[in-house]
Amino acid sequence: MPGTRGRRADARRNATAILDAAVECLSRDPDASVADIAQAAGVGRVTLYGHFASREELLDAVFARAMREADAALDSLDLEGDPRQAMVLLIRSSWRIVDRSRALLVAAERGLPHGRIRELHQRPLHRIERLIERGREQGEFRTDMPVAWLSAAFYGVLHTTADEITAGRLDEADAPGALTGILLAAFTPPGQPVPTAD
Amino acid sequence: MPGTRGRRADARRNATAILDAAVECLSRDPDASVADIAQAAGVGRVTLYGHFASREELLDAVFARAMREADAALDSLDLEGDPRQAMVLLIRSSWRIVDRSRALLVAAERGLPHGRIRELHQRPLHRIERLIERGREQGEFRTDMPVAWLSAAFYGVLHTTADEITAGRLDEADAPGALTGILLAAFTPPGQPVPTAD
Repeated sequence: MPGTRGRRADARRNATAILDAAVECLSRDPDASVADIAQAAGVGRVTLYGHFASREELLDAVFARAMREADAALDSLDLEGDPRQAMVLLIRSSWRIVDRSRALLVAAERGLPHGRIRELHQRPLHRIERLIERGREQGEFRTDMPVAWLSAAFYGVLHTTADEITAGRLDEADAPGALTGILLAAFTPPGQPVPTAD
Repeated sequence: MPGTRGRRADARRNATAILDAAVECLSRDPDASVADIAQAAGVGRVTLYGHFASREELLDAVFARAMREADAALDSLDLEGDPRQAMVLLIRSSWRIVDRSRALLVAAERGLPHGRIRELHQRPLHRIERLIERGREQGEFRTDMPVAWLSAAFYGVLHTTADEITAGRLDEADAPGALTGILLAAFTPPGQPVPTAD
């Protein structure tokens, strides 16, 4: 029989295997059940429920981990220098992450409270706010709107775009240019020319 | 005993009373239960379930009716003339409707599938598309992005704004100006100056 330390290591491995299996299952089917996920993880349902008391709790853990990974990836971007170019980089990198997590986003939108999804975006939202504020100081971005709202609108447009692609109403190839164009336009100060999309 | 015609009229009155009560209850509490709604409507739960087989079905009927009313109100707007001024009118009128239905929107976001909410916006979305297309023909709006996506983004930003107000992160008084400013900027062709917010 394994000792306490061995059992703890087993438990950690199980939890990680369950989260990995959940990402895989939910990416194939946003309505994947706890039973599907337990089977894909190679654990029993009792073991799964020992780690996550409900499907919502599991979904929350999956989405929270995905957001931590997203935040770490965004954290490695160099957002110094010209604010407008930094914004293009941030839009494109954020979109790449949202785009490849589209199915997970659908699962989260179906299974988690709306406010919780917003809460898990807190750090990425703050990053956008900091960049908008720096752009404002340099006269590159508009100052006549609340910065927290501009940053929420950034993700609102990204998520709408993901939903439109999932529903087959937008070609994935059109998304990066369209997003960059519309968001740069949204941040440009009144009176200045709207930047071209690419 | 009432005849068939009398019973049908009773049933219609009951259904209307249930929908009215549902709007009232859900506006106070987006998680209002079927029992709360039946009580407010002055009918038994059995009668309610005779009309709407589940809470989701009732919520769907409430939201569908609200969208029909919204669409009728938007239909009465005069959107001819200068496309940019017509867009301002459409943004402000659409926002007034979304703003006063904020609690109902939260209930719908919690209780209805995401795609269904989009489906129920079909007619308002088409109205925006038609106006964008007319503005494009007159050189007022940008032509380098899919029109269906621009129209989806319009509602994406409106709904994000409603959620931000509900969460206490945006002052309701700031919303109309901010929305008009950001959406006009989003539709303006590259190279043309961003319009002022008001």
